[in-house]
Amino acid sequence: MNEQRARRPGGRSARVAAQVHQAVTDLIGERGYGNFTVGDIATRAGVADSSIYRRWGSLETLLTDVALTRLNAQSPMPDTGSLDGDLRTYAAQVAREITGPDGPAVLHLAVALAGSGQHGVQAGADLRAERTRQLESMLDRARQRGEKAPDALDVLDHILAPMYIRVLFGMVPLTPDYIDGLVDRLL
Amino acid sequence: MNEQRARRPGGRSARVAAQVHQAVTDLIGERGYGNFTVGDIATRAGVADSSIYRRWGSLETLLTDVALTRLNAQSPMPDTGSLDGDLRTYAAQVAREITGPDGPAVLHLAVALAGSGQHGVQAGADLRAERTRQLESMLDRARQRGEKAPDALDVLDHILAPMYIRVLFGMVPLTPDYIDGLVDRLL
Repeated sequence: MNEQRARRPGGRSARVAAQVHQAVTDLIGERGYGNFTVGDIATRAGVADSSIYRRWGSLETLLTDVALTRLNAQSPMPDTGSLDGDLRTYAAQVAREITGPDGPAVLHLAVALAGSGQHGVQAGADLRAERTRQLESMLDRARQRGEKAPDALDVLDHILAPMYIRVLFGMVPLTPDYIDGLVDRLL
Repeated sequence: MNEQRARRPGGRSARVAAQVHQAVTDLIGERGYGNFTVGDIATRAGVADSSIYRRWGSLETLLTDVALTRLNAQSPMPDTGSLDGDLRTYAAQVAREITGPDGPAVLHLAVALAGSGQHGVQAGADLRAERTRQLESMLDRARQRGEKAPDALDVLDHILAPMYIRVLFGMVPLTPDYIDGLVDRLL
């Protein structure tokens, strides 16, 4: 509830959060995961270390918040009226996000967090849960229209996973033909 | 050439390499990528720092060598006489490797290296090139037998990528049914 209020667009708290998120994204791009401290983030964002600790508690919680926000909340889920249209739009949106200016760095961050001990397992589970929830709502709409829809895990395996792996290993760009091919194969 | 000779099984040099590789794998599992030095590796492997620098030149080169060796060279590519059999055996081998005791740590290492600057881009390219070469030879054998074979990139996208992403995000185990399902869908 507080969290919600704190992030209301336009508030000072929201501005601070945006500055801190941007500072994290910049540092990941420049130095890579694991090579900067809360102090570095605070300096770049122009805030006090204590503000970061008060709000996020730890560096890992902050990094997870950045990864979750960037990977999940940037684009609204499409609602084009057909599963085919929704999946194509969704896949193209994800491709744009993960190949955009900070995209590969944020994706590497999400993967690194998911692999880092107990907290990481939770971060991985949170990332998955949020993305699965979004996908399920899109697929449920299709089923309610009487369309035959794949499982959310099939979308993960055959649309998201190939794009993620290609970006993680630098096999870019993801062309429109490539993305449409993934959707064609799944449907 | 020297490298080849140095790694001949049974030699002292091969034993040192094996000890150093194991030390790296242990440290990745315990501390995660980025949280240990050449000195830590040397201590655990029972060798001098200078031996590591002489052989590998830098920590990143050593880490790349470990990732390449572990992800590519552990199992011989299967040759069962049919594409269906080869792909099923190959997918099950990869699943065993990446879910084994050091598997997730090594996979996280490979991804982290692929994302770390100029050297990382090269490491990513090397990992890809080696895996693609192995796959191509298997798929070529199928084509020579008159079977219709997918591209190596399709195998990457629809068999390797889903398994990699599931392991990277802790969605394990990879069951035999799941692995066979990936192969069925591709064929």
